[in-house]
Amino acid sequence: MIKVGIFGASGYAGRELTKILNRHSQVDISFITSESHKDIKFSDLYKKFKGDIDKILISSKEAEKYLSSVDCLFLSLPHGKGFEILKKSLDLGKKVIDLSGNFRLDDKDDYEKWYKFIHPYPNLLNEKIYGLCEINNSAIMRSSLISNPGCYPTSIILGLFPLIKYYYDDIDLNSIIIDSKSGVSGAGKSPNSKNIFCEAGENITPYGIGSHRHLPEIIQELSKANKNKIDNVTFVPHLVPYQRGILSTIYIKCKVDSVSEIINKYKEFYSNSKLVKIVDEPVQVKWAANSNKCFINISFDKNSKTIVITSAIDNLLKGAAGQAVQNFNLMYGFDESCSLI
Amino acid sequence: MIKVGIFGASGYAGRELTKILNRHSQVDISFITSESHKDIKFSDLYKKFKGDIDKILISSKEAEKYLSSVDCLFLSLPHGKGFEILKKSLDLGKKVIDLSGNFRLDDKDDYEKWYKFIHPYPNLLNEKIYGLCEINNSAIMRSSLISNPGCYPTSIILGLFPLIKYYYDDIDLNSIIIDSKSGVSGAGKSPNSKNIFCEAGENITPYGIGSHRHLPEIIQELSKANKNKIDNVTFVPHLVPYQRGILSTIYIKCKVDSVSEIINKYKEFYSNSKLVKIVDEPVQVKWAANSNKCFINISFDKNSKTIVITSAIDNLLKGAAGQAVQNFNLMYGFDESCSLI
Amino acid sequence: MIKVGIFGASGYAGRELTKILNRHSQVDISFITSESHKDIKFSDLYKKFKGDIDKILISSKEAEKYLSSVDCLFLSLPHGKGFEILKKSLDLGKKVIDLSGNFRLDDKDDYEKWYKFIHPYPNLLNEKIYGLCEINNSAIMRSSLISNPGCYPTSIILGLFPLIKYYYDDIDLNSIIIDSKSGVSGAGKSPNSKNIFCEAGENITPYGIGSHRHLPEIIQELSKANKNKIDNVTFVPHLVPYQRGILSTIYIKCKVDSVSEIINKYKEFYSNSKLVKIVDEPVQVKWAANSNKCFINISFDKNSKTIVITSAIDNLLKGAAGQAVQNFNLMYGFDESCSLI
Amino acid sequence: MIKVGIFGASGYAGRELTKILNRHSQVDISFITSESHKDIKFSDLYKKFKGDIDKILISSKEAEKYLSSVDCLFLSLPHGKGFEILKKSLDLGKKVIDLSGNFRLDDKDDYEKWYKFIHPYPNLLNEKIYGLCEINNSAIMRSSLISNPGCYPTSIILGLFPLIKYYYDDIDLNSIIIDSKSGVSGAGKSPNSKNIFCEAGENITPYGIGSHRHLPEIIQELSKANKNKIDNVTFVPHLVPYQRGILSTIYIKCKVDSVSEIINKYKEFYSNSKLVKIVDEPVQVKWAANSNKCFINISFDKNSKTIVITSAIDNLLKGAAGQAVQNFNLMYGFDESCSLI
Repeated sequence: MIKVGIFGASGYAGRELTKILNRHSQVDISFITSESHKDIKFSDLYKKFKGDIDKILISSKEAEKYLSSVDCLFLSLPHGKGFEILKKSLDLGKKVIDLSGNFRLDDKDDYEKWYKFIHPYPNLLNEKIYGLCEINNSAIMRSSLISNPGCYPTSIILGLFPLIKYYYDDIDLNSIIIDSKSGVSGAGKSPNSKNIFCEAGENITPYGIGSHRHLPEIIQELSKANKNKIDNVTFVPHLVPYQRGILSTIYIKCKVDSVSEIINKYKEFYSNSKLVKIVDEPVQVKWAANSNKCFINISFDKNSKTIVITSAIDNLLKGAAGQAVQNFNLMYGFDESCSLI
Repeated sequence: MIKVGIFGASGYAGRELTKILNRHSQVDISFITSESHKDIKFSDLYKKFKGDIDKILISSKEAEKYLSSVDCLFLSLPHGKGFEILKKSLDLGKKVIDLSGNFRLDDKDDYEKWYKFIHPYPNLLNEKIYGLCEINNSAIMRSSLISNPGCYPTSIILGLFPLIKYYYDDIDLNSIIIDSKSGVSGAGKSPNSKNIFCEAGENITPYGIGSHRHLPEIIQELSKANKNKIDNVTFVPHLVPYQRGILSTIYIKCKVDSVSEIINKYKEFYSNSKLVKIVDEPVQVKWAANSNKCFINISFDKNSKTIVITSAIDNLLKGAAGQAVQNFNLMYGFDESCSLI
Repeated sequence: MIKVGIFGASGYAGRELTKILNRHSQVDISFITSESHKDIKFSDLYKKFKGDIDKILISSKEAEKYLSSVDCLFLSLPHGKGFEILKKSLDLGKKVIDLSGNFRLDDKDDYEKWYKFIHPYPNLLNEKIYGLCEINNSAIMRSSLISNPGCYPTSIILGLFPLIKYYYDDIDLNSIIIDSKSGVSGAGKSPNSKNIFCEAGENITPYGIGSHRHLPEIIQELSKANKNKIDNVTFVPHLVPYQRGILSTIYIKCKVDSVSEIINKYKEFYSNSKLVKIVDEPVQVKWAANSNKCFINISFDKNSKTIVITSAIDNLLKGAAGQAVQNFNLMYGFDESCSLI
Repeated sequence: MIKVGIFGASGYAGRELTKILNRHSQVDISFITSESHKDIKFSDLYKKFKGDIDKILISSKEAEKYLSSVDCLFLSLPHGKGFEILKKSLDLGKKVIDLSGNFRLDDKDDYEKWYKFIHPYPNLLNEKIYGLCEINNSAIMRSSLISNPGCYPTSIILGLFPLIKYYYDDIDLNSIIIDSKSGVSGAGKSPNSKNIFCEAGENITPYGIGSHRHLPEIIQELSKANKNKIDNVTFVPHLVPYQRGILSTIYIKCKVDSVSEIINKYKEFYSNSKLVKIVDEPVQVKWAANSNKCFINISFDKNSKTIVITSAIDNLLKGAAGQAVQNFNLMYGFDESCSLI
């Protein structure tokens, strides 16, 4: 049994992480933390789990005491938080999976611009592996520090990577338009004027045009698909009135006359990936919601010579907690989908 | 008082039409029809209106008897229906506003391809005026046959027309990508596997990629904005879990470095239009829902040199019944927004 | 034209009040206030009204300057606030309509128990008229201080009053069970852990069993229906995932064998009330939502000898702003439903 | 491994049944049937399960061929259907769990009144065990024919049984009022005018007052709690705009002054039941949704001497498929909650 600790178990991603790890046959949860809800049972915060997960949420400070006795740490803390815990854990030889954005960007200078903080451990940026499981599979297996991808980037990179890798000559790399739609759980658990029922319901809201912090992450990772650097991508996220899931509708101008060969390439590329499904019609978010899968469809608008890729995930699972556990499974040699199907 | 008749008052657009015309100070509703709900009160079908609109729904057949005594006919019937009524009304010298797609396309041959019927009155296609009020204002005033625009096209053409008209040299006309999101009332009132609560709720569904019948309508009307024909447009509609409203997110590659001048041009272009609002931030569907207004924002993604226009309407009002009454107001010399604010 | 001022125009009820009064043919809005959103346009807070209601929200302090020049004040402030403004207005001879709970209870001692404040103007409690228009019609016409009813009480009292008034001998007055369901706008506009989308959506929550502050208001007013005091009522409100509306399902044990005579009595009782509709089937909240009407149905469960009354209103309209304007109409001799249909 | 067959796998309950049994460690699904969707993969009907449940749906007729090779049959067919299959299966010595209402009522004459059919196998009505697991635990273990309870009755009987069993002298048995709220999945998967998004959404609808077919089932089973027959119960179901779950709010007049002892009795009564949770505050449907648990709270309104029990389940799980598998587990000696937590 692998002993794990979870920092930040009271947010939505932390809740899902706790739920998945609790049922994982190879895992023993040593502790779960929460600053805002410490000293109460997890099942008092989330009544749903009464009798199943009655473990008490403790403070980070208290959790540090148990650090040496666990094998792997999950950090599901706000961006900019948790660096000390993470450093200490690594120094103790522990494996760490960080669900925040703290390590997603490779260049330390980008943190100031996109995350508004100066990165305290720039050296670790080279050490960390970007934990997009289907792409970085083998590196993840050997890593001790995983930076778990953002939710939007997960849906987008899985949807675009094979196209850019194998067909970069056939597509216009500067034409990529990504119109993403996220459920309201993506806006977090803290009440605010955007995520209340009477504002988010019966509505749809575009936001962060050209300024969302997932944009540099998307460009950075897509640029690794082949030798051609991606210079820009247009990315517009929208808040949509459902609880869970992201749908990314991706548009790329191309020179091809059909996408049937491309579709086959995608199927081949993901043939060993149990959690990615290439399907024959535009994907619906409800297929992916409450699952750890990513559904992808590649369509073609002949008249405008535009490839239209739709990609759907659950933002809290494949886009956060589920992928964190998938990374964990890879790091410890378990089946990638253990506890995830 | 203008005497009007409404064919097809039991669908969602017909319901809104009846509601608006009932409160219109210059209108007297002579009859309302419904085949599926004939011989019951409008307020028995829509309880909300009990005591306010207790008029009885009659069959089309019966309504024909009263045709000669009305001034203006509204046809809110399914595509492909109502041609005989329309012809008869015109022959009797009545004005007609057709809310269906029956006259939206200029070329008779397009009906077979997009609407699956052979157009019975191709000559009328030249006579009809496309009733997008803010664009075709003066022609509408003189017309007897208005083809009321589709819901998606209304949001899109209002959002793009000034850009194409004045800045066609600065934008890449072949780069237009339109990602539209419609509420479920757009899927109609007849129960089907797509519009039931447990399928449409907690979900988002892209559909009709490159094949939606509003596509040729969009291309046709945008091509009239200037001398350059638009050859293609990528249009992907999505079904979103709210009841009313359309948000269109529109992407155009451009050569400009700023959109501030463009924004001013939009404000100028729509300065006399009470129902179009140019706003400073990306638009939300809830602003437009339950109103007859169109909200438009023009944003700019500098890095990718992409103009991002967001445009929102209520699909049943500005996208259907509201615009029909706006057309009526123009035809009869009333204030454009009479009964609509 | 009657000149009015609105204190507290930025909450949901204040928004509706501003909207209704703005379109009222006999009203001129002198000022609207908001502490949290002062010095911005109403239409910047609620974009929907851009171009229609661009009046600037001012602070209460500033509004006091204009007090002497208006005829009637609407107070849509939180419970326990606004007493000084109200007193000053009355002293200046103005009419006041208070939408808060500050004057709803007749007994000053009840405020400490239910509202947690000591009432500063107990003498005014006798002066005020409880503004349930269909019941206290004539008193309202002569009053200068109206206490606008709570949302739950409006739906409940309108549903029960005729029964208790005319059939108190036939029903068990101690058996009244009221199961009410309110939309999330009833939980206010301030974000909190109960009204966020991911908690309120896909959920239903009973709360305040036996402790809701609308309970004494309900008992107090029902007791006025006849000589028999109502000693108790079981009232359980629920938060339901829709935006607007209250449905109250009311159960009363009775001795009768049929409710047909009772139904006729209800129709007679409300025969002059344009905004109350007695209907033939259990009522749905959507009939009343976005309207100022109250829909009531009286059903009978023969087997258990139980009358089941369902009553629906829009909590923000007939349950707040709409009724406030209805009171205003009565006070000034306008048609009761002016600007409300 | 127990070999099972599922008749009616394409409806919502059938879908859940297939999902649960597919992951059950002791089960091998031999076949799944659907008349309306035969000859396609389960994962083509429900895309979510692509790669996980790709078994092909076959017709009932074809499934009959495999009847002799399975151990246990699940029937998730419409009321009034499947009697022949069931009889044949029993004759072959198979165990049968019927999710329809076909065997829930004990008295054959009640079927005509409530289900509109003449029961073809009245003798089996005595043989069947009513599969409310927490109540009829030991009888279920010995049975070959389980009638799986209705969704509303499950939430209600679990909520009331201990009270009636142990406190019948302290409560007024003729005062029971049950106000139930069901999610829209309870209205089935066939599109109709009640379950479409624009009718069910932003709405709440009471229906079937005194006439719902779950009423006789509730009265019948509650009457078994002690020697006193329950003569009547007032039951009013409501359709509420969320997908999954039932909340029953139950009111009973009583002589007690406190419910603390009663609460302890409930905890004792359910002490061995992993799937029933007695909690300290009124229950929310979201706790039970997507789980196989029943959450129950017992509150007391002192002033009106009324016990208020709130009980929540997932209508498709504990109210249908989950309970069916719980019955299966009991019948085969597995842990009651196997595959259900």
